[in-house]
Amino acid sequence: MDSKFIELKNHLAEIHDLTKIAWVLSWDQQTMMPMKGAAVRAEHLASLGKVIHEKFISPEIAKLLDDLSGYEASLPYDSDDASLIRVTRRDYEKEARVPAELRADMTRTAALARQAWVAARQESNYGLFLPHLEKNVALKHKYVECFDESENVYDILLDDYERDMKTREVTAIFDALKQDLVPLIAAIGKKSDAVSDACLHGNFPIEQQREFALSIITRFGFDPDAWRLDPTVHPFASSAGTNDIRITTRYYADFISPSLFGSMHECGHGLYENGVSPALERTPLCRGTSLALHESQSRMWENLVGRSRAFWKFFYPKLQTAFPDQFKRVDAETFYRAINKVQPSLIRVEADEATYNLHIILRFELEQEIMRGELRLKDLPDAWNARMKAYLGIDVPNDAQGVLQDIHWSAGSIGYFSTYSLGNIISAQIWEKVLADIPDLSERFARGEFMNLREWLRDRLHKHGRKFTPRETMDKVVGGFIDVKPYVRYLQKKFGEIYGIK
Amino acid sequence: MDSKFIELKNHLAEIHDLTKIAWVLSWDQQTMMPMKGAAVRAEHLASLGKVIHEKFISPEIAKLLDDLSGYEASLPYDSDDASLIRVTRRDYEKEARVPAELRADMTRTAALARQAWVAARQESNYGLFLPHLEKNVALKHKYVECFDESENVYDILLDDYERDMKTREVTAIFDALKQDLVPLIAAIGKKSDAVSDACLHGNFPIEQQREFALSIITRFGFDPDAWRLDPTVHPFASSAGTNDIRITTRYYADFISPSLFGSMHECGHGLYENGVSPALERTPLCRGTSLALHESQSRMWENLVGRSRAFWKFFYPKLQTAFPDQFKRVDAETFYRAINKVQPSLIRVEADEATYNLHIILRFELEQEIMRGELRLKDLPDAWNARMKAYLGIDVPNDAQGVLQDIHWSAGSIGYFSTYSLGNIISAQIWEKVLADIPDLSERFARGEFMNLREWLRDRLHKHGRKFTPRETMDKVVGGFIDVKPYVRYLQKKFGEIYGIK
Repeated sequence: MDSKFIELKNHLAEIHDLTKIAWVLSWDQQTMMPMKGAAVRAEHLASLGKVIHEKFISPEIAKLLDDLSGYEASLPYDSDDASLIRVTRRDYEKEARVPAELRADMTRTAALARQAWVAARQESNYGLFLPHLEKNVALKHKYVECFDESENVYDILLDDYERDMKTREVTAIFDALKQDLVPLIAAIGKKSDAVSDACLHGNFPIEQQREFALSIITRFGFDPDAWRLDPTVHPFASSAGTNDIRITTRYYADFISPSLFGSMHECGHGLYENGVSPALERTPLCRGTSLALHESQSRMWENLVGRSRAFWKFFYPKLQTAFPDQFKRVDAETFYRAINKVQPSLIRVEADEATYNLHIILRFELEQEIMRGELRLKDLPDAWNARMKAYLGIDVPNDAQGVLQDIHWSAGSIGYFSTYSLGNIISAQIWEKVLADIPDLSERFARGEFMNLREWLRDRLHKHGRKFTPRETMDKVVGGFIDVKPYVRYLQKKFGEIYGIK
Repeated sequence: MDSKFIELKNHLAEIHDLTKIAWVLSWDQQTMMPMKGAAVRAEHLASLGKVIHEKFISPEIAKLLDDLSGYEASLPYDSDDASLIRVTRRDYEKEARVPAELRADMTRTAALARQAWVAARQESNYGLFLPHLEKNVALKHKYVECFDESENVYDILLDDYERDMKTREVTAIFDALKQDLVPLIAAIGKKSDAVSDACLHGNFPIEQQREFALSIITRFGFDPDAWRLDPTVHPFASSAGTNDIRITTRYYADFISPSLFGSMHECGHGLYENGVSPALERTPLCRGTSLALHESQSRMWENLVGRSRAFWKFFYPKLQTAFPDQFKRVDAETFYRAINKVQPSLIRVEADEATYNLHIILRFELEQEIMRGELRLKDLPDAWNARMKAYLGIDVPNDAQGVLQDIHWSAGSIGYFSTYSLGNIISAQIWEKVLADIPDLSERFARGEFMNLREWLRDRLHKHGRKFTPRETMDKVVGGFIDVKPYVRYLQKKFGEIYGIK
């Protein structure tokens, strides 16, 4: 039995290597590749995707999985070996339904669409992007047809990012969230003048922004021998292995927030990948278990850590030294309020913690309407703009700051967005557990110490990688499923205090 | 018949994509990858190499090649299709002899050795590198055993870099070269004080070096939308496609020559890959036909162009402006003489045009002795140092500047070095043809015009890619085989004039 398991593991290692290679190529495409390399790169990714698919959906793998049922049953459920067999079987059953040609088509089309999106966004020209989006969506429909009919066509897409999660469940979670969030945002809106973020705008040389961001994330665990930080159009985190973590950020010379909080956000993702147990390296278990859990990490480091008073108690004097012209005359409390200003705005990734979730709900709804055929893609910008007006009360001046702002749809990622808000919610659930275990966390932050938090997360969450389903993992970390209450409590307390709302 | 050809072409496109992906990974490893990513990267390259090998050495490819014999015979020899079948058949016959596991072993071992070499070189510690070199050499012996016995064990390695070239032929060429070169170097040695290169040493901020190098190679054809220039430890050129060319260089803040001539050198390689006919993209014909011909291009742009008076007539005033403190008081003729100073030195890639070839002959001899088992690897540094003394009259102060200076042996490239000198020789043969066709080439250079030369090379050489063997290609470009006379004439004329030797 052992030898069959080794055989399976070797197959999976090879397939995982190829998958990670695709991650490197994609990272390269978004950070390093010269523009004219795009057409050939799309072919490279398509060929690689085809090989990965063929190698995985092979009679050998199917046979090995069958043969190993007994071995699996003989092992504890949470052993690495049993988990590898169990998770691989689930992956296999899903991927076996997708024809190789469709998989290659999706990869190739997405690679080209991503490049078209960069150009379309630069020129704020949705028309340039529309034909690519149409292809991506058409392929998603073909993809959905590969599976048994589900309660909701969108369920199948959601499952790719958040295993076992149903559209119905997300809708219920978002409804509960809205119930407390909408009145909170309204109450804040009445006191919108109470906080100014003027100090975050000005003149911030990019090289210094980079150095400052590095000085922060180095304390979170960024190690220059195992990580990279590069500039890109749309920030993301990737990795080639647990010791080759690649995060990206973007810099604006006149606005410091994106690089500051973006770096912490992507570092949070990087820490999850970096913290997976070395024993899982080169297996399909070697990554975060779901996007919502991944996002819980990025949003935690960005917001619960990075927008806290304790954090800035340590870092604000350093920020004043790095940018004296900007911050010399700004006191710590003014800065803390500035980075926590709640204000409806255009760009999701730069939105405050409260309104952020409305950006997500908007996308979650639009995606469902697109997939159900209720919204034509040519009408998408109008629908986007109308909903921005309805939910956030603001006018979208152009498509670059509207419907073209996110990379996801260009990359063929439909069903992804809701995981961001689920991540927000989960981050607060985890945070309550962390605080119970490390009551002096704030005092530690104020001394620049973040390793306790990282080790806690590594030990409870990161190390498991993808051994357990999102639900199982949630159960291990917080002892239950998604619950909006801790997040709502957190928002009400924090913004209640800042804006003087009971 | 057509449909079988399309089938073959599709297979080869996929395999070529995977091969190019390996090039990107290797580029990444040497320019971007964090150090601790090396172990996993080695596995990635090994897995990819294994897949490439399996995909190529498959019964389908063998059958298609057989079935397409008739189609091939029906086409003109130099058609793209006939060439694709012919060259693929030759590649197949060779690669089919190499077991997949050996191929994967060679790839993995080389990736680790390359990383060990970087560390060993930094610490000038040959002992750190020795076990890796031993593994690389042991695998080369296994590799040689895959083939029929040849006149010389070294022939099999040579053939990988220079198809059909025999050790005996290279020896004869090098003997002929030495006959004229040794007395020339001796005559120059007697007048070694006639030229000073002091002006090349001093203070050269790296960012300005980079800008100046870019200003040169942009006139050669470097296009920022299709090329990259990055710093690395050991410069090289790579590419992901004809429109994704990646060249690298190294900078010393106190010595301008390496980045200046290194960039031109790698740009020459890049122009060859960039100039291959777009019709050959994503086929195994889409690259230079041999290393000697590749080197003829890099050495041509570096030396015949970049160390010529005409070139500096245009660029020297610009160099004076870029580095006023260094060159304000140095006249053009002094600078021209400085960059052409002949002086035995430690480092191959920084050697002058005359002594360069002695560095190659030394390596060519050592490699043969290693492969014939006459030289033990632990004695290699001593052998290296003794031969440096014998051939160039200089003492090697440490292994970093001696036996550890080149990347090749770490990458498992044994049999490669002679192609550099063959490239020098060929570059002069091609140059005589170019001058016959473009008699006002110097006047054009003096005006900063290099496109005629690039177009000539593209039209006669680059566009063919790998359609023809090195010999066939030579025949097309210069109407004959390798001949040392033009190169010797060039060296005698140039250095005779500089050093006042008849």
